[in-house]
Amino acid sequence: MTVVENQEVAECGCFLNAWLWFNKFVKKLMFKVVDNAKSAKKLGQEDPRRIVHSLKVGFTITLVSLFYYFEPKFHYEGFGVSAMWAVLTVIVVFEFTVGATLGRAINRGIATFLGASLAGGVHRLACFSGSKTLEPILLGIFLFSIAAIVSYLRFLPKLKARYDYGVLIFILTFSLVSVSGYHDKQVLEIAHTRLSTILIGCAAALVVCIFICPVWAGEELHNKISSNLEKLGSFLEVFGTEYLNTAHGADSEQKGSDLQGYKSVLNSKSSEEVLANFAKWEPRHGKFRYRHPWAQYLEIGGTARDCAYRIHALNAYLNYETQIEQEIRTRIQEPCMKVSTECGHVLKALSLAMKTMTYPLTIMVHIDNAKLAAENLKTLLHTNSSWEDINFSAVIPLATVASLLIDIVSYTIKMVESFDQLATLARFKKTNRFAPVRIRTGSWKRKRVMPEPSTENVHHHTIAAE
Amino acid sequence: MTVVENQEVAECGCFLNAWLWFNKFVKKLMFKVVDNAKSAKKLGQEDPRRIVHSLKVGFTITLVSLFYYFEPKFHYEGFGVSAMWAVLTVIVVFEFTVGATLGRAINRGIATFLGASLAGGVHRLACFSGSKTLEPILLGIFLFSIAAIVSYLRFLPKLKARYDYGVLIFILTFSLVSVSGYHDKQVLEIAHTRLSTILIGCAAALVVCIFICPVWAGEELHNKISSNLEKLGSFLEVFGTEYLNTAHGADSEQKGSDLQGYKSVLNSKSSEEVLANFAKWEPRHGKFRYRHPWAQYLEIGGTARDCAYRIHALNAYLNYETQIEQEIRTRIQEPCMKVSTECGHVLKALSLAMKTMTYPLTIMVHIDNAKLAAENLKTLLHTNSSWEDINFSAVIPLATVASLLIDIVSYTIKMVESFDQLATLARFKKTNRFAPVRIRTGSWKRKRVMPEPSTENVHHHTIAAE
Repeated sequence: MTVVENQEVAECGCFLNAWLWFNKFVKKLMFKVVDNAKSAKKLGQEDPRRIVHSLKVGFTITLVSLFYYFEPKFHYEGFGVSAMWAVLTVIVVFEFTVGATLGRAINRGIATFLGASLAGGVHRLACFSGSKTLEPILLGIFLFSIAAIVSYLRFLPKLKARYDYGVLIFILTFSLVSVSGYHDKQVLEIAHTRLSTILIGCAAALVVCIFICPVWAGEELHNKISSNLEKLGSFLEVFGTEYLNTAHGADSEQKGSDLQGYKSVLNSKSSEEVLANFAKWEPRHGKFRYRHPWAQYLEIGGTARDCAYRIHALNAYLNYETQIEQEIRTRIQEPCMKVSTECGHVLKALSLAMKTMTYPLTIMVHIDNAKLAAENLKTLLHTNSSWEDINFSAVIPLATVASLLIDIVSYTIKMVESFDQLATLARFKKTNRFAPVRIRTGSWKRKRVMPEPSTENVHHHTIAAE
Repeated sequence: MTVVENQEVAECGCFLNAWLWFNKFVKKLMFKVVDNAKSAKKLGQEDPRRIVHSLKVGFTITLVSLFYYFEPKFHYEGFGVSAMWAVLTVIVVFEFTVGATLGRAINRGIATFLGASLAGGVHRLACFSGSKTLEPILLGIFLFSIAAIVSYLRFLPKLKARYDYGVLIFILTFSLVSVSGYHDKQVLEIAHTRLSTILIGCAAALVVCIFICPVWAGEELHNKISSNLEKLGSFLEVFGTEYLNTAHGADSEQKGSDLQGYKSVLNSKSSEEVLANFAKWEPRHGKFRYRHPWAQYLEIGGTARDCAYRIHALNAYLNYETQIEQEIRTRIQEPCMKVSTECGHVLKALSLAMKTMTYPLTIMVHIDNAKLAAENLKTLLHTNSSWEDINFSAVIPLATVASLLIDIVSYTIKMVESFDQLATLARFKKTNRFAPVRIRTGSWKRKRVMPEPSTENVHHHTIAAE
């Protein structure tokens, strides 16, 4: 081979390499695009309201923009500052749920009014000084101190939860208005324009958000808590049949989704709190009054989470290959199954009752059954004669499962009590004689043999970085 | 008494009532103000960086405002639109940590550029049509479809976590620029002004945020995980001495804070994830390189949370009044104490090593001790002869505690392994021969008698509403 031929081969190799690399890159890119498109499609299939929301946002923005586009009087400055604020307001205020949109709109409206008023006052005060050199110094001092104080107040957890956006807009409006004009008249005009355009933007966003396929945060919270109870109930129902039944291997795969659903309950705290905060802004809608007891939902959610922690511990024993004699199994299986399935029934009944906003129909029977089964389980564990000739180490997992189930009974009863309070506060429909559970569950607690699980509310530990 | 006197008395009563009500109201108001002032003061005492942050925000806003106030060329439209955008950018972009500020600034800058470019293109395309009636229709169609598509994409979890703000600003800029001008020249000018002022605002915020007492999100995450490990370690150390020692009643109050600290770990998931997302934006700083393995921190945090769930279960047994004979106590107390305190030592050593970014010094001894103690505990539980003449029901809580402690040992080892990976990835200083734990802990797991706690990562369940 000559040198030229060699070079040609090398060049061919170069091109081939480049081609291969390019091919790989395109394939990778295509794969990524297809992957993202698939997950985007899935998002829409999971919750079609997301598609409706996007269309609503697009519609409102176009509406407000074109209104200002066609209205020539807003173009007096060649830019349409007003149009800008209205469009900006729509984009910033429009959220998925009505509560979030309302919260932002009200925050934005009131904060703009307060900020503009204060800025007007401060501007007038600075003008009183008369001298042209003193005025900016005074303005600067006011601006610095108010911005610093308000920024600091944003760290207050109470303020942060519901009014953070308002506080931000307050600083914003105050800074903009107080700095932007030299003359009193101008400041007033700016403040007035800003306030009116923001109100137009908020109104447009709210009307579309509330009257076209609204998504209510309160309803979301209601459904979320209800579905959490159902998930826990499903686990317990399936656990009752699956545990100690290693023969049911095929079934367990089928029921996998029922069994793993509870895991989303473990970390549901923050989303529940956010929804409850949004829900507080919402007016009366559907089955929910204004001032519906949203805090009570958080209480039920907290107990459900405590229950989910125990279920998480139970879950470890689910696929546990036992070397236990058939005898112990059958002896302990029956009460364990009973406790688990009855608690599952109770939670599912609660979930259904919450969905329909009625008092649950058949709940007392299941509570009584669960309590009875738990008592049986305790008696069984207490009777020394039952365990005399048995390998101690083989019984420990069973005893742990039993004690976890006994804990779960007490959490279930706590949830029923919280539900009862909710039903009273929210005036659920009474379709039957549902005696106040509070009284009837009192005696149960005192009789417990296992230590009371710590029921202190761990949900109030705020974390600095949150 | 005459009628007049009667009336006077009634009037007096009225005044008295009004006065009392007013007095009560003022007192209530004062109480609320004092209460809020106290909690505001506490916020500052807890973390003085909050005060510094507020001063930084005030300073930057004043700086940018006054710059525009004194620069007359920006007042050509009588309003100072440019000044407005710069001040607005500072207020909206400035966050507590550098990572959050950088993330918002980069998102805002790039999104503004992209949005303005696209709007310019769309405007030119609409202008091509030539007719004055077709132009707004075309613009409207573009605006609607782009706003709807981008609003929909905001639901994608990947996009939401890091680029949500950017996507919002993209729609914003696109709408503003595409609608605000009639002529090509004007659109370009608007786009240019908007981009340059936003860049000035971002630059001012970033310079102040980074160079004056910066708060790094990465360091926050690092310290948070480290302090979480310490909290778990403290609990285990104290649990070792407290459990079964009801005589130590006085001590337990003293150690209350050590024992309840772990509860903040249970719900730490969301704040850890937020911090990790912020940290990814941060440049090299202090001990942390760019692309520091932040994801590894989340893994350690996840295992720490799993461990905290078990500790939450243990906590229920802490103040449990036992009716157990002194004999069983002493027999089971020693290995339980050993496991608990050794695990506590390991976690505290890990926490300290993380703080100093070194390999832990004395950790292997404690791991070996914990494993040995756990083996002892297992052997004890397996030996039937140890429990022959004992009340079975009294042993169950002990057995449960023991099994929870054995679980905790395995989680501790998992944390050590994750820590080892982190130390390798982040190149911690090697101050001693710290053999790779991965190899040495392998045999332990296979020997376990209690079922493996489900170690599936429950932290990837995203919740629709989050």
